[in-house]
Amino acid sequence: MPLTTVACCQLALTVGDPEGNRAAARQAVERAAAAGARVVVLPELANSGYMFRDAEEAGELAEPLDGPTVEGWGAAARRHGLILVGGLCERDEDGLVRNSAVLVDESGVRAVYRKAHLWDTEKAVFVPGDELPPVIETPVGRVGVLVCYDLRFPEWVRTVALRGADLLCAPTNWPLSPRPAGERPVEVVRVQANASVNRMFVAVCDRAGPERGVAWVGGSVVTDADGFLLAGPRPAYDEGLVIAECRLGDARNKRISENNDVHADRRPELYRSIVEPGQALPRSPR
Amino acid sequence: MPLTTVACCQLALTVGDPEGNRAAARQAVERAAAAGARVVVLPELANSGYMFRDAEEAGELAEPLDGPTVEGWGAAARRHGLILVGGLCERDEDGLVRNSAVLVDESGVRAVYRKAHLWDTEKAVFVPGDELPPVIETPVGRVGVLVCYDLRFPEWVRTVALRGADLLCAPTNWPLSPRPAGERPVEVVRVQANASVNRMFVAVCDRAGPERGVAWVGGSVVTDADGFLLAGPRPAYDEGLVIAECRLGDARNKRISENNDVHADRRPELYRSIVEPGQALPRSPR
Repeated sequence: MPLTTVACCQLALTVGDPEGNRAAARQAVERAAAAGARVVVLPELANSGYMFRDAEEAGELAEPLDGPTVEGWGAAARRHGLILVGGLCERDEDGLVRNSAVLVDESGVRAVYRKAHLWDTEKAVFVPGDELPPVIETPVGRVGVLVCYDLRFPEWVRTVALRGADLLCAPTNWPLSPRPAGERPVEVVRVQANASVNRMFVAVCDRAGPERGVAWVGGSVVTDADGFLLAGPRPAYDEGLVIAECRLGDARNKRISENNDVHADRRPELYRSIVEPGQALPRSPR
Repeated sequence: MPLTTVACCQLALTVGDPEGNRAAARQAVERAAAAGARVVVLPELANSGYMFRDAEEAGELAEPLDGPTVEGWGAAARRHGLILVGGLCERDEDGLVRNSAVLVDESGVRAVYRKAHLWDTEKAVFVPGDELPPVIETPVGRVGVLVCYDLRFPEWVRTVALRGADLLCAPTNWPLSPRPAGERPVEVVRVQANASVNRMFVAVCDRAGPERGVAWVGGSVVTDADGFLLAGPRPAYDEGLVIAECRLGDARNKRISENNDVHADRRPELYRSIVEPGQALPRSPR
């Protein structure tokens, strides 16, 4: 089974400086390609930065899929024969502003995903997606795409895993929150669990920082199909590559004992209540 | 908001010695009560032990809900005014052998749960349950019950969390498997994630060992509603209490930012495909 090198480019970006951000991403992708990467993941909103003052600022920074950012990613993919997944502040075909992730390869844009679960003030800025996340057949295996807060919904991750993704790529911007001394960021813990319950590789690319006073977790990681870390997180939330060789074919084997298979052992007929609308419980009191 | 002391009694048990196992559990519950526990969790199959030679041996060790094990647990609950969740090799009312967990309090048996996801050779021994897990209103909060391998199915955990459980209690017997040096057991990582995505406390009681050549993870833990560990795991898989004071009321607040709520942000209408029978994929090849 061949090894595939997967790289996450943990970048410090600047809100409102799309040219600078494109240059930072371009340089990081070059470094990743030089290190042998076949799959490269960039952070969420890699063109625009994250900490918008308001919806208007986000709208001004949003670009279409044929804009300079995705064009640049396509050129890098062609130049190096790689698969690139990056987060884009997108102006969609209807003029709506989306928190998107794009998968490009040598042939161009293979998939665009619009984040379905929006974090905090994103709700005032973006229109959430309501399509299933993509799972794309590539020469290295099947690659799924989600964005950041989506990872907190294991049901959503399942929709990717059950359609056969070998590797889930997730651009993120995880704001730093307090944690007990010596503890791994719980964002990373959730990623490990998502990998483990699905026997699927996961590559998450987080931000370096800070940006407008917000620090990031710096939680870029690549996990194996057992949920263990192959690379990352970086000790501080600095810039750099998080890179690992992955035997992605391992994800085709869902067996975990003589008589167990993490997907075949599911009992979907018993889970129906979690998709009933009544299960969207009332919001907790402020 | 009051604090509730939750204790897991990580026990070394002996397959085929129900009297010895009952005595070990009784002593541990006494120690937990003396330490102030209001909720006490025992391992999976705490009456019988785990490593059955075959279905026949399990059948011989199975007891009904009015047998000596559950009777003893009820007496301890009355004596100390506590809630006890323990794993039982059960002979049910139809004579079927079940891998069950029982919740008892001063009033007696409040709930019995039959494990729905069976691990490895359990499939030759037990009849799986097909009822939703219980969520029981108690003086300290709402308590849900699952068993071991069930925790690997975040959909199943959701069925407990969405019905309002503040604390999930899970008797387990986690066989030890290899992990990279310095890494936390992935079983514990999954428990943390289950807690975190639901803002629900989780108390897992694992086994000490060994038993018929099998070693256990020794992964008993109590997490808070953020998924961080309040107690456990123990450094080796030895016997002892894993005990923590829990502000269980924290689980009533699902908010994690000004504009986010881990349950209200779910988009059940998008998750339907994961409960379709077609999504029970074919078993991976051996």
